[in-house]
Amino acid sequence: MNRNSNQVGALIFFLFYFGVTGCTNTQVDSETAIREILDKQVAEWNGGDIPAFMDTYVKTDELRFSSGGNVQRGYEETFNRYLTRYPNPDSMGHLLFEDLEVKLLSEEWAQVHGRYRLKRGGDYENATGLFTLLLQQKPEGWKILHDHTSAGD
Amino acid sequence: MNRNSNQVGALIFFLFYFGVTGCTNTQVDSETAIREILDKQVAEWNGGDIPAFMDTYVKTDELRFSSGGNVQRGYEETFNRYLTRYPNPDSMGHLLFEDLEVKLLSEEWAQVHGRYRLKRGGDYENATGLFTLLLQQKPEGWKILHDHTSAGD
Repeated sequence: MNRNSNQVGALIFFLFYFGVTGCTNTQVDSETAIREILDKQVAEWNGGDIPAFMDTYVKTDELRFSSGGNVQRGYEETFNRYLTRYPNPDSMGHLLFEDLEVKLLSEEWAQVHGRYRLKRGGDYENATGLFTLLLQQKPEGWKILHDHTSAGD
Repeated sequence: MNRNSNQVGALIFFLFYFGVTGCTNTQVDSETAIREILDKQVAEWNGGDIPAFMDTYVKTDELRFSSGGNVQRGYEETFNRYLTRYPNPDSMGHLLFEDLEVKLLSEEWAQVHGRYRLKRGGDYENATGLFTLLLQQKPEGWKILHDHTSAGD
């Protein structure tokens, strides 16, 4: 019985040890990965590349994009909204994310809050507002499943 | 050795069995609990009871309420915003939640999407818009930690 107990004890210690230390490292890695993805997304927007910017969103019907009182569902609908609203470089302007807060909910899920600022040229007005993102860790990396955006200073 | 293997096998089966079946029941229970909480919240609003309505929000500094371009942080600040914006029964009007979608992220976290409709009397205009809630299961039940609201038809 002692030998059995020791083996079970060792198994529990093993699971606990790797559970605790693995979790902490994963959290740091996940927050870094998410911030890098958002930095990359901003750079792609500012390079005028909407398809690359959109690569951060999940490419399925799960995608939900709420803006003001409107909801777009699915990748295609969201992509088309961006193409329609931002038809040229002046309309896209220069994007900046501020006040980013990454909240890791588990190894699989994270929520991000932040503010966007769009400085635009030509006849287009500058724009700013808040966003709340829900991200899921997929085999290919963290992807945005839900985006809720509201305009306002 | 066989006896040891059997014991470890039984332990793994036990953990797996209760992990799988427990999870399914918990998900159904959690969605039901969350929908009941939101129904109760609507009833409390329509009864003119802002403190009871606010009981669904976590009563700590963790609370974050984003509306348009503004962020309120903490329970007190959010509570005071409600008292200021809704000083009397006509301003509170009659509340309805529509298109509720509950997404369980884990046993601890859930996200809720929906639309609010506020039918108001006197000089107050009707209001509608979208909300995204992040809820956490606390010892005292599910509580809203984050609320992002955007006005719009």
